[in-house]
Amino acid sequence: MTRVSLRIDFDNGAQFGPGKARLLEEIGRHGSIAAAGRALGMSYRRAWMLVDAVNQTFRQPAVLSRPGGSKGGGAALTPWGLELIRLYRAAEAGALSGSGSALSELERNLGDAAPPPADAETGE
Amino acid sequence: MTRVSLRIDFDNGAQFGPGKARLLEEIGRHGSIAAAGRALGMSYRRAWMLVDAVNQTFRQPAVLSRPGGSKGGGAALTPWGLELIRLYRAAEAGALSGSGSALSELERNLGDAAPPPADAETGE
Repeated sequence: MTRVSLRIDFDNGAQFGPGKARLLEEIGRHGSIAAAGRALGMSYRRAWMLVDAVNQTFRQPAVLSRPGGSKGGGAALTPWGLELIRLYRAAEAGALSGSGSALSELERNLGDAAPPPADAETGE
Repeated sequence: MTRVSLRIDFDNGAQFGPGKARLLEEIGRHGSIAAAGRALGMSYRRAWMLVDAVNQTFRQPAVLSRPGGSKGGGAALTPWGLELIRLYRAAEAGALSGSGSALSELERNLGDAAPPPADAETGE
């Protein structure tokens, strides 16, 4: 089935999209920013910067972390972090249903063959 | 106003999203893959690969190009290319309206300050 991912650009310049949503979900799963980043093939520095950006985007932090000893200190989602994931996934579900008729029309025009692997859509 | 961008992942593995949509729009504007790529800060090679991927995704090509002399050969959108852009933008508008209530809830939780520039959402 066709899937859609949503990137949200807020008025104040903040962005939230599939990368940050998955990172938060992995932090909830692993209890660690480093482990979540690794699960997504992301450097620790990159993961940390994304978490910092999310924490500065909203009134409340989404992730709390403890600066780590040698093994890293652990991290956890706050209630707002859980709610943020829920709202993002709800927005995505709404987007899928709202775009349904245009998506069906696009699907009807798909070719038979899969496009080449160079087909990465990276947003730029 | 909050804006959303849509990345579509089709069943056959093909993807279509804001980068390709803007590239097609710029090709329509400039009549050239190279000029369209430049307008988006993209290498010619990258622009060409994205166009090739789009052309292989659907039954019909979206862009026709003429292999170039020293100045490049020129490129144009096909009727399907124009329709593809229209459908993508329609899907995006539908997505925005479909995700409206979750988006409003996210907006209500935005902080006052803009997040740092490190806040790039690149999808990974």
